[in-house]
Amino acid sequence: MSVRNVLFIMCDQLRRDHLGCYGHPTLRTRNIDALAARGVRFDNAFVTSGVCGPSRMSFYTGRYVSSHGATWNRVPLSIGEITLGEYLKDGGLALALAGKTHVMPDSANLKRLHLDGGAELETLLRSGHFVEVDRHDGHHAEPRSPYADWLRAQGYDSADPWTDYVISAQTPDGEVVSGWHMRNAGLPARVAEPHSETAYTVDRAMDYIGARGDDPWVLHLSLVKPHWPYIAPAPYHAAYSLDDCLPLNRDDVELEHPHPVLDAYRTQEECANFMRKEVSDTVRPAYQGLIQQIDDRLGQLWELLERTGRWQDTLIVFTADHGDFLGDHWLGEKEQFYDTVQNVPLIVYDPSAQADATRGTADARMVSAVDVVPTVLDSLGMPVFDHRVEGRSLLDLTRARTDVWRGFVVSELDYGYRGARVALGRHPGECRAWMVRDTRWKYVHWQGFRPQLFDLLNDPNEIHDLGEDPGHESVRAQMRGNLLDWFCTLKPRVTVTNEEVAAKTNVYKQAGVFFGVW
Amino acid sequence: MSVRNVLFIMCDQLRRDHLGCYGHPTLRTRNIDALAARGVRFDNAFVTSGVCGPSRMSFYTGRYVSSHGATWNRVPLSIGEITLGEYLKDGGLALALAGKTHVMPDSANLKRLHLDGGAELETLLRSGHFVEVDRHDGHHAEPRSPYADWLRAQGYDSADPWTDYVISAQTPDGEVVSGWHMRNAGLPARVAEPHSETAYTVDRAMDYIGARGDDPWVLHLSLVKPHWPYIAPAPYHAAYSLDDCLPLNRDDVELEHPHPVLDAYRTQEECANFMRKEVSDTVRPAYQGLIQQIDDRLGQLWELLERTGRWQDTLIVFTADHGDFLGDHWLGEKEQFYDTVQNVPLIVYDPSAQADATRGTADARMVSAVDVVPTVLDSLGMPVFDHRVEGRSLLDLTRARTDVWRGFVVSELDYGYRGARVALGRHPGECRAWMVRDTRWKYVHWQGFRPQLFDLLNDPNEIHDLGEDPGHESVRAQMRGNLLDWFCTLKPRVTVTNEEVAAKTNVYKQAGVFFGVW
Repeated sequence: MSVRNVLFIMCDQLRRDHLGCYGHPTLRTRNIDALAARGVRFDNAFVTSGVCGPSRMSFYTGRYVSSHGATWNRVPLSIGEITLGEYLKDGGLALALAGKTHVMPDSANLKRLHLDGGAELETLLRSGHFVEVDRHDGHHAEPRSPYADWLRAQGYDSADPWTDYVISAQTPDGEVVSGWHMRNAGLPARVAEPHSETAYTVDRAMDYIGARGDDPWVLHLSLVKPHWPYIAPAPYHAAYSLDDCLPLNRDDVELEHPHPVLDAYRTQEECANFMRKEVSDTVRPAYQGLIQQIDDRLGQLWELLERTGRWQDTLIVFTADHGDFLGDHWLGEKEQFYDTVQNVPLIVYDPSAQADATRGTADARMVSAVDVVPTVLDSLGMPVFDHRVEGRSLLDLTRARTDVWRGFVVSELDYGYRGARVALGRHPGECRAWMVRDTRWKYVHWQGFRPQLFDLLNDPNEIHDLGEDPGHESVRAQMRGNLLDWFCTLKPRVTVTNEEVAAKTNVYKQAGVFFGVW
Repeated sequence: MSVRNVLFIMCDQLRRDHLGCYGHPTLRTRNIDALAARGVRFDNAFVTSGVCGPSRMSFYTGRYVSSHGATWNRVPLSIGEITLGEYLKDGGLALALAGKTHVMPDSANLKRLHLDGGAELETLLRSGHFVEVDRHDGHHAEPRSPYADWLRAQGYDSADPWTDYVISAQTPDGEVVSGWHMRNAGLPARVAEPHSETAYTVDRAMDYIGARGDDPWVLHLSLVKPHWPYIAPAPYHAAYSLDDCLPLNRDDVELEHPHPVLDAYRTQEECANFMRKEVSDTVRPAYQGLIQQIDDRLGQLWELLERTGRWQDTLIVFTADHGDFLGDHWLGEKEQFYDTVQNVPLIVYDPSAQADATRGTADARMVSAVDVVPTVLDSLGMPVFDHRVEGRSLLDLTRARTDVWRGFVVSELDYGYRGARVALGRHPGECRAWMVRDTRWKYVHWQGFRPQLFDLLNDPNEIHDLGEDPGHESVRAQMRGNLLDWFCTLKPRVTVTNEEVAAKTNVYKQAGVFFGVW
């Protein structure tokens, strides 16, 4: 059957190695695993940046960070960029949202263009052309959001129920403490599980799908968890013990001659704390609990799809915007270029009979966040706008339509907003880095600092940085060449389609221009 | 005295070696030479593309083609781009235009944003924020333009006086022939010199300057000549003979193992014709006559500035958007990466006393079209918006404020619209090339084809392509490294200034976000 609906599920800060289908030894993610069994599990799926905002803008535009320009969380997406929602709208569909987008409106350009008057267009432009069934970005107080109103209606009596209940806990001796403090990660949140963020957001998605009936829909279910604050509602706060968690992936040798930028990151609070074992020991079980809750709630969504027959005509993409170090490599949070953060889960369930041959398989080809937009458009039979979109439809892989695929992916970082910049004494405009990753090597090109290089074959845990190793100069040169090739394929000519160029090739004389005539 | 006004003069398709101050042996460009004697003559000034549209968009935005995205003549400048006129407008000044801009309005985005209703804002957005005192793009019929109306008022009775008079001629036996046909280049145009494009446009500029009185102004005087159609009004059609022209710079060896893209260009009419000596012999004297006329008319403008005291408070930039092969290198027109086209005249007259030490000097540092916007803004004491603008103020050089300057420049090409693309069987999206030029070497990086390399020290005429020479691999690798470095300095983060980034660095907790806290 052909695809009529699309369900694009994103988790925030979910590590790939924290899913059963990707090899976690104890996490019981049976519903996500079941999706992988029905679709294709991509084992080399990379984000374009290890930070929410820039990564998501690539997921939503199909373009790399160097092209969409939203290089960090607080950077608005330029009004000149077109998102999936706008492509769908032009095709007669809406892109519904339940959960988080991290889209920052380009207020300066809206004002510049006198589009700050509150019209429907402005609303869409501000939201990145998501129709916000329910937007909830999480990880900061949103006291006037629909979620906050709903919580109050459930009896959570507070001007800011997210802060006071959802991310707060109560100690055994009755003290109310904040989930912002990682020392409290093992306590149960003060919110009942059905009222937690994950439950609420999945419920909004299910409501939307149910309300659509047999009308086609495209929905972005964007869960803010397992992103910090690391605090899970009961019983998930206690679902796992430290014994169930992966061992820390870090080695003293990493601290011996550290890269200057990593060294600067490790002076920041989130890294300094995660370098202490008690921090990761406390956080990791709660992080696993949050994932377990997501999987359980997705099970209910799968049942809805089953009851309504939607498995037959719905493309499902499941992924994350990046991972979480949780102390690996002596780092907390994300941003840096280790696979822990950059290599994300990506499962594509394609209901088409053309995808039957790949059902339940794993694919190790190098795929990227930029591939999601063309995948969605392709699945719905829409054009993929290849003068703008820099990714490629993954249906080429699920439907085995090609043997030719890219050999490497690129991810980027702009740490201009980070304290590490100040520690390093850098100007905000010179804090960028690019990772080139193929199946064997990872090369990181830093503005103003030496490169990094890891041999994924002989050092899969990325402990030994060969960025200055004299024996690997030829590898680094090859990877720099790949990076240059990549820059050359970016698509700045966004105002004219390739079809228009082809139609107007060499049409001077028809336009009354006769240059070069003797 | 400080700068109060700016006069930014551009000629279209004017070769650097066709000015006396740049060494032409016979051309009598005494007024342009006088400007050089009062200012700084830049000997290594390069455009960002050897094509009008993309080159001009860099002159007007201060950004490289890979950033502004208008990769060829017909590509609209994205509504997300900010031009000099908009920067000036925000600073309370208008950017007046007399002549050509080649700005193509981004109609698709104007429509997308519902900005197609004819308001003042739309007019400015369509014109690239030029206030069009008189726009005349030349080189195609503009029968409903102010220039056409004015010609009719002078008695040129025609629905299209440009086609019928300005670019037409009469043979000795009375036949009216078209200046589009280069065989007619030696005939006088059917328009009297005071009614020709150059005279008309300079007059409009002088009217504007005169009307401003003592009010400050910024004016772009943008002459469409000596661009084709190559036909000059009397007496300039006969001002020079072939003996006065530069010898052809071309060698049979260039045709022996030509680069595939150049080979394809040479199959196109303009190149095939200019490969015939009778064509260049006919066109070159007329081309020199058009330049002579420009210089004479600029002399009148200089006199106006003298009479009104404007030499004391006006910054003057004189340049061209690219050169013209005129048969050199067996090529006609432009686009390709030889210095004939890429290295343009650039003279900066800075009235400030701080520039007295450099007055009348030549500067051989590598400067670029992207430097003009920051130069103009800097001269007026305005911010240069260094999160967007990729060039640097040339006042750093005229006022000797620095010893540190860039070591190379980059120019680009997208030949997707050209017949050469079809001849080569390429997709419109894979027709790009990048030139890296330092004082010694020129390297051209082609999508899908071998590179080119020229040794400017030992081969200043660029006859011997070392793009595949085994002895120069290290040079090519170095130039590829420079190109990668350049890509890494482009500025995609256009929606937030560097100052805003600095002000918001590490302000999580103040914003109520407490990640990484134990």
